Amino acid sequence: MPSVVPEFEAANERYVASFTKGDLPLPPGRKVAVVACMDARLDPAKALGLEEGDAHVIRNAGGRTIDALRSVVISQQLLGTREIVIVHHTDCGMLTFSDTDIKAKIRDDLNENADHIAFLPFGDLRKSVLDDIEILKKSPLVLDVPITGYIYDVKTGKVDKVKE
Amino acid sequence: MPSVVPEFEAANERYVASFTKGDLPLPPGRKVAVVACMDARLDPAKALGLEEGDAHVIRNAGGRTIDALRSVVISQQLLGTREIVIVHHTDCGMLTFSDTDIKAKIRDDLNENADHIAFLPFGDLRKSVLDDIEILKKSPLVLDVPITGYIYDVKTGKVDKVKE
Repeated sequence: MPSVVPEFEAANERYVASFTKGDLPLPPGRKVAVVACMDARLDPAKALGLEEGDAHVIRNAGGRTIDALRSVVISQQLLGTREIVIVHHTDCGMLTFSDTDIKAKIRDDLNENADHIAFLPFGDLRKSVLDDIEILKKSPLVLDVPITGYIYDVKTGKVDKVKE
Repeated sequence: MPSVVPEFEAANERYVASFTKGDLPLPPGRKVAVVACMDARLDPAKALGLEEGDAHVIRNAGGRTIDALRSVVISQQLLGTREIVIVHHTDCGMLTFSDTDIKAKIRDDLNENADHIAFLPFGDLRKSVLDDIEILKKSPLVLDVPITGYIYDVKTGKVDKVKE
């Protein structure tokens, strides 16, 4: 399979040629940390109107906040963010398997034990967002800041706010 | 402080109005997972030429791979990615503190104990990329796939490949 590297580097040359954002400060200008799923179809910057310099963007499988805690604490304690926005999305891969499934697959395919990892899948999208808000609210290491949770629709590009 | 939410939702309305990517499949089209820092000045999609549907983008403080392991395993085992690209960057916040510093700050400011979290700062940018490649290569849960590490220059937008 051909590597993406030559294409990534060619794209980067084009980006550099029109780059104008060389003087941005380290702390995010809009003082927000976004926690979003790693899904390929979601571009948080495009979907939420983020420019370079605006926001921390933390992404992992599912956009799970328990797995983003280290980054959220650094974002707040050292870089001054004072708001959190969570983005999960429709048709998420995390809805398609169980922790038991993936551990069995790893045992079968790789002959390895992954029992030390919580893979954090979920069965209900709305509940996953509410759970992830709650995890942040309950953590004594996270400041009491506004937290908003969205479900992004991969068919339309629209974010819908999840209400409690 | 005013919330970013109204601005995010207005930006999303504009995104939806011109959205044309509603039919993308769940697995990343370019079969690659990018692990990058959460830094506000880095937009991995713009810097590497990623369109919606192309790649998993995993982001955390520093772009540390040990903290991305759950997501990388899901990306490979369930969604078929077969290449990894790591992006750390110049002027990273992770170069500015020690694990001891942040734990002391949390003790002083929040009156909480964060000794259960490894905050994963680093003192050498090039070494952090090489270390993070090595962590993936050594993990029995990660497939033997091509791994490329870059340092992104926040002053120029350029990625430089880190050679061993």
